[in-house]
Order: sequence, then C-alpha cells, then structure tokens
Amino acid sequence: MTNPSNDRVLNFSAGPSTLPLSVLEEVQRDLINYKGTGVSVLEMSHRSKPYDAIIRDAEATLRRVLNVPSNYAVVFLQGGGTGEFAASYLNLFASKSVRAKQAKLGRALSCDYVVTGSWSKAGMKEVQRLGGHVNTVIDGVDGKYVGVLPVSQWKLGKPEETAFVYYCDNETVNGVECRPETVVDAVDPSVPVICDMSSNMMSRPIDIKRFGAIVAGAQKNMGPAGVTIAIVRDDLLERDDDPAVLHNLPSVLDWQYYNKGGSMPHTPPCFTIYVCGLVFKWVEKLGLDKVEQLREERAKIVYDVIDSHPEFFKGPVNKQYRSCMNLVFNLPTKELEAQFVAEAAQQNMIQLKGHRSVGGIRVSLYNAMTIEGAQAVAQFMQSFYDQHRQ
Amino acid sequence: MTNPSNDRVLNFSAGPSTLPLSVLEEVQRDLINYKGTGVSVLEMSHRSKPYDAIIRDAEATLRRVLNVPSNYAVVFLQGGGTGEFAASYLNLFASKSVRAKQAKLGRALSCDYVVTGSWSKAGMKEVQRLGGHVNTVIDGVDGKYVGVLPVSQWKLGKPEETAFVYYCDNETVNGVECRPETVVDAVDPSVPVICDMSSNMMSRPIDIKRFGAIVAGAQKNMGPAGVTIAIVRDDLLERDDDPAVLHNLPSVLDWQYYNKGGSMPHTPPCFTIYVCGLVFKWVEKLGLDKVEQLREERAKIVYDVIDSHPEFFKGPVNKQYRSCMNLVFNLPTKELEAQFVAEAAQQNMIQLKGHRSVGGIRVSLYNAMTIEGAQAVAQFMQSFYDQHRQ
Ligand SMILES: Cc1ncc(COP(=O)(O)O)c(C=O)c1O
Ligand SMILES: Cc1ncc(COP(=O)(O)O)c(C=O)c1O
Repeated sequence: MTNPSNDRVLNFSAGPSTLPLSVLEEVQRDLINYKGTGVSVLEMSHRSKPYDAIIRDAEATLRRVLNVPSNYAVVFLQGGGTGEFAASYLNLFASKSVRAKQAKLGRALSCDYVVTGSWSKAGMKEVQRLGGHVNTVIDGVDGKYVGVLPVSQWKLGKPEETAFVYYCDNETVNGVECRPETVVDAVDPSVPVICDMSSNMMSRPIDIKRFGAIVAGAQKNMGPAGVTIAIVRDDLLERDDDPAVLHNLPSVLDWQYYNKGGSMPHTPPCFTIYVCGLVFKWVEKLGLDKVEQLREERAKIVYDVIDSHPEFFKGPVNKQYRSCMNLVFNLPTKELEAQFVAEAAQQNMIQLKGHRSVGGIRVSLYNAMTIEGAQAVAQFMQSFYDQHRQ
Repeated sequence: MTNPSNDRVLNFSAGPSTLPLSVLEEVQRDLINYKGTGVSVLEMSHRSKPYDAIIRDAEATLRRVLNVPSNYAVVFLQGGGTGEFAASYLNLFASKSVRAKQAKLGRALSCDYVVTGSWSKAGMKEVQRLGGHVNTVIDGVDGKYVGVLPVSQWKLGKPEETAFVYYCDNETVNGVECRPETVVDAVDPSVPVICDMSSNMMSRPIDIKRFGAIVAGAQKNMGPAGVTIAIVRDDLLERDDDPAVLHNLPSVLDWQYYNKGGSMPHTPPCFTIYVCGLVFKWVEKLGLDKVEQLREERAKIVYDVIDSHPEFFKGPVNKQYRSCMNLVFNLPTKELEAQFVAEAAQQNMIQLKGHRSVGGIRVSLYNAMTIEGAQAVAQFMQSFYDQHRQ
C-alpha cells in the first residue's frame, strides 16, 4: 500500500477536525489486526482484555494530561456536546446537593447561563426545552457575540436560588474564547460552574478544581466525533435513594451510570475512544504547556495578518476574547469571501467558510494543525489581500 | 505495509462483533486520505460534500437492503440500544397519537413489555426508571428465558390503555429469537409495536410496515459500536405544538430532531456511520435473502453438533425459539466450560464465553462470520466432546 499522506490537504474544519498524521498512520497500521489480537478495534468486544486496556489507558492518559484531581470522575459517553447540554442540567438536578438546596428554597432553582455565543445559547435553550428555569447572566455584548461583558455588568442569580452557572469556554462559531478565571472568579464558591469545553479542551492547562463539571465532545482537539467526555466533581454525583430522582434522567445521560460502569455500563463507542486515546498520548508526548505555546503561536501567525489589514480582514471579536482555536473574520464583500474560500481550496486549504449562521471566514487552528499550516493560510491571506485591496 | 489478515482469529463475540474483512481492508486503504479528499473520514467535517455523500449513501443503502417503506423515517443517532430503551418510551409519549389516547383515557397509558430475555427486561426497567407504567405481558416461560409462551397465555393490556407493545426480536444474552409475526399478529393493529432488533437486524428480510418503530445498536450485524439506528413510522413523529410535550425528551433522544436534520442536527458519529455504510453495501451485494440463508446454514452447523450430544451440550432454549445469532449452551461442569473457552482461544477461536449474567458458552454467528468459521467451531465442539464425554 502506498502512503498517500503527501496528498493530504490542510484541514481548517471547526469540527470534526484535523488529526495528527502519526495517529492516523498508527490507526491505519493496526486497523485489521490490532497488536496481534487477530481482530480490529472496530470489531473488538468491549469486555475483552485488550479493549479494557485501551479504555483504561485512554482515561489514565487524559487524567495525567489534564491533571485531573482524584475527586473528579472522568467518563466517556455518547451524545456529543448537545447531549451534555441536557446532561448537565439533568444530572445537577438529580444531585443530592441541588435537591437539598431546592427543598430549602421551596421552589425550583434556576440555572445561570453566561451566554457568550451560539453554543452557550444552545445549551440554555436545551434547558428551556426541558422545562428548566434559566437566568441569562449576560447575552453577549449588547446581544452581539464579540466578547464578554465586564463582570460588574453580569446578572448572576443569588447563590441560594441557583443550581449552577454554565458557560462555554470557547465559542466555536463566534470565535470568542474566555479565560476560565473570568467566570470561576465571579461565581460564589457554593455554586458549581459547569463548562462546555468542546472546542478548546486539551489546548492548555486548566485548573479543574475550580469547576463542578467540564463537558466536551471529542471532535476538535481530542479525536473523532462520536464520544463525549465529562469530568465531574464527585460530590455532584451523590444522590438521594428515592428512585424518583432519576425520573427525568435517562441512563445514557447519567454521569453516575457511566462512572460506576467504568464508562462501559453498556457498549461504548469503542473505536472512537481508541483513537482519542492515541491523540491523548500524542498530546502527552508534546506536553500540555508546549501545546498551549503552539496554540498561541499558530493563532498569532494568523491574527498578525488580520491586524496588519484591519480594514480588509474585519475581525468582529474584541482582541481580549479572540479565540486561538477558531479565528473568524469578514472580508469587504460576500463575493470576496466566496472567492477566498474557493481559491484556498484550490491551494489545498479546506473548510475555511464561516459557520452558516454567521457567514464570513473561519480558520480553525486546533492542536493537530501544524505551524506550517498556520503559516500557509497566513501567506494565502496576505497574497489575497495584496490582490484584492482597494 | 504487510497485510496481516492471515493472522486474524475467528471472533465469536456477541458485540461488538466480527466485520467483513473486505470492509476492514477498504477502511484501512482509505484511512489517511479518503478517495482523494486529502483527509481521513476520522477528521472530515460532517458539513462537507464528501461526508454528506457518505451519510446519504449509507441511509439509501439501508433503505434498499431492508426495503424500508417511504412513510418510515430512518435516523442514525447515538446512545446505543440502551439509549433507545428510553427513546422508545419518551418519543412515543411525546407523540400526538399517544397523547390523544391518554387524554381520552384520562390517566397514564401503560407500556406492554413482552419479556423474553434480559434485553427486553432491561428496556422495561429503563421505562420504570423514568416513571413510566409498564405491564409485563409475559416474563419468559415461568420466569426462565428459554422461549416464548403461547400467545393465549399473554397478558396484553387493553388497546385503549396501552401506548405501545415492546419486545426484543433476538435476545443476545439468552439466545432466544422470535419471529416478528409472533408478536405483531398478536397485537391490536391500533397499538404500535416497538422492536429492539439490535442483534438480528439485517440478518433477514423483515416486514417493516408491521412495526411502529424498530431500533438497533449497529455493533452486531451492521458495523462498529457507536451508532444507533431507528426506523420510525411517520405518524409517530407527529407532535402537538405545545412545547411542554418535549419536557421529558432531551434532543439527543428525539427521533424527530434527527429526522428533520437528516441525522445531522448536530455532529454525528461520522466514522462509525461510514463503516456501517460499507457493511450495508456488503450486505446489499450478497442480497438479504442470501444473508438469511447463510445465517440458517451457519446456525445449523453448530446446532447439529449440539443436537447430536444433547446430554453434553445442554441448550436451554426451546428449539422453536433458538437464536441463529447467539447460540447458547452449557457443558456438564463449569470446569469443562472454562477449558472449552481456553482451548478454543488457543485454536484462534475467541469470545466463546457466555454472558457473565448467565454463564455457559455462547457462539455468536453474525453476518460477517463465514461458513468456514461456523464449521471450525463445530469441529472444535465435536472433538472437545470426543475427548470429554463420560
Ligand atoms: C463549543 C461547542 N459546544 C457544543 C457543540 C455541539 O456538539 P455536538 O455537535 O457534538 O453535539 C459544539 C459543536 O461544534 C461546540 O463547538
Ligand atoms: C438486543 C440488545 N439490545 C440492547 C442492547 C444494549 O445496547 P448498547 O450496549 O448499545 O446500549 C444490546 C447489547 O448488546 C442488545 O444485544
């Protein structure tokens, strides 16, 4: 078999996203017969010894890489980021502590949503769909998703009336990235912070103990689509004995169900977890500090072009909150944007179109994107500018 | 790269299960650069043209292979068979027709469970967890999962008090397989039949129009673990406008959400669906009638050995309901069973141990198991018998 890796393109997709070539090569090599087991991981029983080693190793590597405290559960489950919109709410409202607080209050607690873009908004809408009470702490900056309002302008609920505070650390569509401190420092320590880190988990060290739970679909920095990761503080998994506590919580959204079953209370998405495990190892080898340094470096390469020609590359996001993962901007006209995307594709740079809800251009620079890849798109931007500036 | 396919073993796992070698070879070949796109399907945007072709083709092939009527939706979602335990109940109770019937009755409808083994039981328990009312139509044969009681002994609920009738067409753990007619003929046509076909879907033609919905995890006959298939009659997707209808139904379990979004209202398990699509094509090429003939042939090869030495190979299931997919039996002692499994493994036949809840031996013979594979295990059984009979 010839190695077609030379014909690969630069994939700037916002997710599912480019994976390290070395990981893909290992997956390919072992695809038909995994390390002498005589079977593919695609067809391997999840109750077999080799698979047990795969999933335990994936969890252990993730714990080392992210420095997960021992009082946090790590579970792999299904349903993507969207599943966790519901799971976050349903698990918290099934927890002993939230139920006790609610009993004390005598009416339903509300859920604080710090809306900084379309994904935190989507998380909030799911809770509304499920009949939950939400409190919008902020909704962008005057309704626009271009940054984060100063904390002094936030409308946080009273701690005794609030089940949790929810935010999204990196808004994949809008290119708005928080620093976790912005949120966790603002919230009363008695209220758990739930964070959607789908699009920037494992791109920098995080202080997990500041969070109640961190949830993420794998398909940006961590692996292929089809597995979701939840990191949950132990005490939030505690429940009352009353079976009615589970009436709203289907097993497949129940963090405790997965935690008790070692992420395998039922059949896990075996192969996807396997590939994630290889990506975790790849990150571990680099080191998370190095990964963070590279993410800043890649982003700087592209933002430097943007900042050199701000009248041409119009970045809507306030500099302080610009994402290192998803760099969004507009060109002077829609026609130019279409031309930009088409010409880039001809030069083997794909998936540069902004999300359909906002248009424009989006350059996603996840962990597996090389510095050379960032340079290539930056050079292309510069020459596109040279050709088309007024 | 050398082709290690010669070193493959015979994998009798109950799921995830052996896949066709030709499918694995194609996956391996295209792993790093899918058909000249320059990316792997593992990292391909689900909003890209090539991926859209992959998922649409998978759906179209499944529809052709199973001859799915046009008034049935086909959706790919996540959560496995266990997710569908909850989804079946929650979607039905969100449907217009069930709600209208319930309003007419003036109290909660109940759900009829035809329990023929541990998976239909698990489906029933999930509904109980969620606070639903269940009616146990039968619970095995005097509590034992060895067949299906005659319909005359079933305790079906009254049609006007029953939301749906649920059963599992093939009980993977207990080796009990129904004929769909047994159930659908017994049920009042006004009551939808929901069927879990996780472990025998695509092993024979089925008359889909007799069902309200058919649900299945892919990881037996259809592909790797990590994707679930639901085939749902259109009218069961109809809803009242009232948003409260959705209070108990998280988006990721909502069949209508997936149907409206072409199985991609959010990120699907892209790669898993891709592999399923290849398996569907493999089935289509064989033809579903041929697949059925092969399944009977494989099963006969093994059952013939069992039936020749019934005092040694003790099959608990009544012949009429013995599964062609999961063939279960006991040996005279637990020691012999352990020896059987160990010696088989030495001869490259793996995963023959019965489910931990029931013990014994289980030989799973799914579509991708060859006739030669069935012959090999049958020969092994015969020689094990010759060695160990009293
Ligand atoms: C930050 C964020 N949250 C949630 C989601 C939704 O994830 P999924 O499509 O896996 O449901 C996405 C998807 O891109 C995302 O970027
Ligand atoms: C018939 C049947 N139903 C449901 C399930 C549960 O499926 P999952 O493990 O994907 O949740 C299984 C698993 O083996 C099964 O065989």
